[in-house]
Amino acid sequence: MVEIINTGNELLNGARLNTHQQWLTARFARHGFEVTRQTAIADNGNAIEEAVRESVRRARVTITTGGLGPTSDDMTREKIAGLLGRELIHDPGIESHLEEFFAKRNKVPSPRTMVQAKVPEGAIVLMNHHGTAPGLVIDIPATEDTPETMLIMLPGPPRELYPMMTEQVIPLLEERFPGRNQMRERFVRTTGLGESAVEEAIGGHLEPLKKESGLGVAFCLHPGHVDVRLTSNRADADAVLDSAVALVRSSLDAYIFSDAEEEIEEVVIRKASESSITLAVAESCTGGLLSNRLTDVPGASEVYLCGLTTYSNEAKQTFLRVSSNTLETKGAVSRETAMEMAKGLMEATGADIAVTTTGIAGPGGGSEEKPVGTVFIGYATSSRSGALKMLNPYDRETFKRVTSQQALGLMLKLLIGKDPD
Amino acid sequence: MVEIINTGNELLNGARLNTHQQWLTARFARHGFEVTRQTAIADNGNAIEEAVRESVRRARVTITTGGLGPTSDDMTREKIAGLLGRELIHDPGIESHLEEFFAKRNKVPSPRTMVQAKVPEGAIVLMNHHGTAPGLVIDIPATEDTPETMLIMLPGPPRELYPMMTEQVIPLLEERFPGRNQMRERFVRTTGLGESAVEEAIGGHLEPLKKESGLGVAFCLHPGHVDVRLTSNRADADAVLDSAVALVRSSLDAYIFSDAEEEIEEVVIRKASESSITLAVAESCTGGLLSNRLTDVPGASEVYLCGLTTYSNEAKQTFLRVSSNTLETKGAVSRETAMEMAKGLMEATGADIAVTTTGIAGPGGGSEEKPVGTVFIGYATSSRSGALKMLNPYDRETFKRVTSQQALGLMLKLLIGKDPD
Repeated sequence: MVEIINTGNELLNGARLNTHQQWLTARFARHGFEVTRQTAIADNGNAIEEAVRESVRRARVTITTGGLGPTSDDMTREKIAGLLGRELIHDPGIESHLEEFFAKRNKVPSPRTMVQAKVPEGAIVLMNHHGTAPGLVIDIPATEDTPETMLIMLPGPPRELYPMMTEQVIPLLEERFPGRNQMRERFVRTTGLGESAVEEAIGGHLEPLKKESGLGVAFCLHPGHVDVRLTSNRADADAVLDSAVALVRSSLDAYIFSDAEEEIEEVVIRKASESSITLAVAESCTGGLLSNRLTDVPGASEVYLCGLTTYSNEAKQTFLRVSSNTLETKGAVSRETAMEMAKGLMEATGADIAVTTTGIAGPGGGSEEKPVGTVFIGYATSSRSGALKMLNPYDRETFKRVTSQQALGLMLKLLIGKDPD
Repeated sequence: MVEIINTGNELLNGARLNTHQQWLTARFARHGFEVTRQTAIADNGNAIEEAVRESVRRARVTITTGGLGPTSDDMTREKIAGLLGRELIHDPGIESHLEEFFAKRNKVPSPRTMVQAKVPEGAIVLMNHHGTAPGLVIDIPATEDTPETMLIMLPGPPRELYPMMTEQVIPLLEERFPGRNQMRERFVRTTGLGESAVEEAIGGHLEPLKKESGLGVAFCLHPGHVDVRLTSNRADADAVLDSAVALVRSSLDAYIFSDAEEEIEEVVIRKASESSITLAVAESCTGGLLSNRLTDVPGASEVYLCGLTTYSNEAKQTFLRVSSNTLETKGAVSRETAMEMAKGLMEATGADIAVTTTGIAGPGGGSEEKPVGTVFIGYATSSRSGALKMLNPYDRETFKRVTSQQALGLMLKLLIGKDPD
């Protein structure tokens, strides 16, 4: 029932990824609106006119993004007024908003700016609290062949579009289209198993809910983790999803790190904070990614003491006291080095849990015995230490991502007292 | 002239970002094909039929992605055959490919798999070397009202789609549509200036080339850097672009880190390797991101010795010998701490260039004197040391990204002997 039309040359010449597509469709899905089509077209008057004309024939709601600014590329307002045969009328409310906007920034609006104060006759104005171009809503009456359509024009920049959508458009649509069954979704996030292993483990358990309660199940593969996405748009969606989550938990418990859309690093920092357990990491092959992910979490500094990227052997010796004998006889990529790094790190920092990585990220550096992708993840706490061997034969960035995910998975197991092996 | 139709429920319900859009449009642009529309629709037979019917009326080339697999969601093949009134015919070549594909994996194809061996009468088959579903090309003859159209159906998974596109589709299109003026593009990447400052610095210098030689100029804003995108589709594109790059260089030289699509971390590692200069970093507020970016570059281990994420004050003292007096009187976020970190790091690691970050990433921790976003970037070499103060008042992840970019910019200046201030 909803169609989205994104305008912008950059969407058709490879210059930009259209992140509006996912952001907007996710918002509609959450509020129970089905998006039936998304179209991207160039900043070209005829293309805009054609796409809007087709869309308003089919859809109950047509959303356009972009083309509302003051430059000559911006022609959505004008083309749509022309298409609908409506005059462009000066709106004094927008004019004062524009004047205020520039006054606050000690600037005077240029005459060209004031084109944004022109709106098609009869349009509802959505004030733009984060920029200049207002959003516009036009109700197009039904005809014999076509339904009544709301045509909603929104600005392109995310910092203007996103708040206008959540604060003004969604409430307006909810008022106009009451009584929808909102789709609810729940993600159960797992790490340590591949996509097909996750699907197999869940097996037929969810079949009755799928058949009898319209449960939707999808598997979303990410580097190092697999999300089970559960959806329902029934009136009793919450109950259906609760049952589904419980069934997934019963088959996959050891691999689940969240059923609340948290990243694994957020869960790690939260669990560590709850128990006042301090953390430190020493990285070789992950090169700082593990530390970077932990410090992406606000409040990490409460429990995360320090991360060392000991890339060279000298750094492993200087900061972590790894013995030169181990480095010479076992090699930098070895179970023994991973464990000595962890013990040295715990001693140097006083952290309660120390986790380390050493491996061969590639593309160079592999051997028959230790091919590219070989990793040892070491750990030490006051009561135990060890190292896990993994093989992650991917490109360099995926290798780092997957390895950091495994290290976080290990850290989480140590935090909640599960066996790390 | 090219239209792209992406099929998949996940593209319309927020479950997936449509990365095909940018990847495909970039490939077409590079080879001189203009994409005029991209559409995403659900896995729904009627929607697919309607979108393809509309598109082949307008476009010279219509590309579909997805819906060619063996499951019941996959209905592109069947719907398109129906729309064009063509029979589905068994293709023995595909059958042997499928059998071989499964035999290699010690599996037997299920009967359902063999649906992929059915092709609309008269279609050209594009073998899938990385999966099971072949691509299909159908030539639709011109009518009185519509041009001749090539309808090209491609599989959805990137590992199948991407090689099929570059190895088979692009060569086929180049053969069918010879004599196009290929668009060439060049990026000049700058750091240290905002988008409008970059635009202003270039000023009118490029106007003659824009007017007389059809040069295209766009500014692409990223966290911490701005790319100037220069394009030309003229026969003498290379000469036009060379002149444009030279003009941009003459106005912005101090801020340019690459005109060859390199990331700044790649330039840093390359320059350091060329001069055998070793590097080390110590991070507080960037939390490991700086180290992570440097180690994303293959071969970084040749020159990058070590990175320390000294998040706690104790770690700054233990590993970097920052004095407790400095931490107490000046604070962890101060010019003095940034400089002591850099000197301590150089001494501990023996690196030729040491760079450090300390700041307030937020959301918490700001004060009137040092608001959220305050950063000091310290540096030390054998001949000089200092610290730059920056204000990066963004969300936590953007803050880290922008700060790491500034630190890499500083590192590059030290590497090429420019004044860091």
